[in-house]
Amino acid sequence: MADTDGFALHPRLAADTTPVVELALSRVLLMDDARFPWLILVPRRPDLREIYDLPAADQATLWQEISRVGEVLMRETGGDKLNVAALGNQVPQLHVHVIARRTDDAAWPGPVWGVGQAEARDQGVRDAIVRSLREALSS
Amino acid sequence: MADTDGFALHPRLAADTTPVVELALSRVLLMDDARFPWLILVPRRPDLREIYDLPAADQATLWQEISRVGEVLMRETGGDKLNVAALGNQVPQLHVHVIARRTDDAAWPGPVWGVGQAEARDQGVRDAIVRSLREALSS
Repeated sequence: MADTDGFALHPRLAADTTPVVELALSRVLLMDDARFPWLILVPRRPDLREIYDLPAADQATLWQEISRVGEVLMRETGGDKLNVAALGNQVPQLHVHVIARRTDDAAWPGPVWGVGQAEARDQGVRDAIVRSLREALSS
Repeated sequence: MADTDGFALHPRLAADTTPVVELALSRVLLMDDARFPWLILVPRRPDLREIYDLPAADQATLWQEISRVGEVLMRETGGDKLNVAALGNQVPQLHVHVIARRTDDAAWPGPVWGVGQAEARDQGVRDAIVRSLREALSS
């Protein structure tokens, strides 16, 4: 469903994630894949494909949000290396992956995309992760 | 070899690329892989691993340089979708991939990393690409 400003989350992103928090520009989503601490940021602007399609002020905000979310995710989950990526080859709506990688995770040292199958998270675990990230990102 | 400010390009990045241009913060490199228009930005700061390790002003500069390089690369090469990623799982020095993807390229719609083998570029073609990107990014 579209917001009043014309933004509507792509159905594929909605189906694969759980909402975490709304930042000034971006909606933060948790990927429903227990193998990785994996967030997705989606700027709430309609019809966006490329980062450089955003006005300069929104680009600056998006990059600040990516850095902040990445730092919080690494700290909260004890990651070894942050992975940040804007690909969009399959889902055209602009979205940015922010993933805390561990040297013992299921895809290391390769990228996570297209590796194996997503694993469901226990609902209690998922709720705890969402709550702690929401608190850390709302402060 | 280290610059006077302590920055030295990781030998793996040096081996796989051709230098294009120096921006205010980043060295821009062309990946020596004829299959993809693929640039790498490396901030000239020593001992960097994560984007959030940079001071805020340098982060802002890096993001501006990524957006600019991405837009120029897409325009110069007629790409269909820009891919931007900071991974660093194999080469720990902070570096950002900026790749103009085409829907008929060798890895579409998957990511480019780890797909097949790099293909050598004819030296004349490589020099022409470097020259046109250097001109577009120096103006």
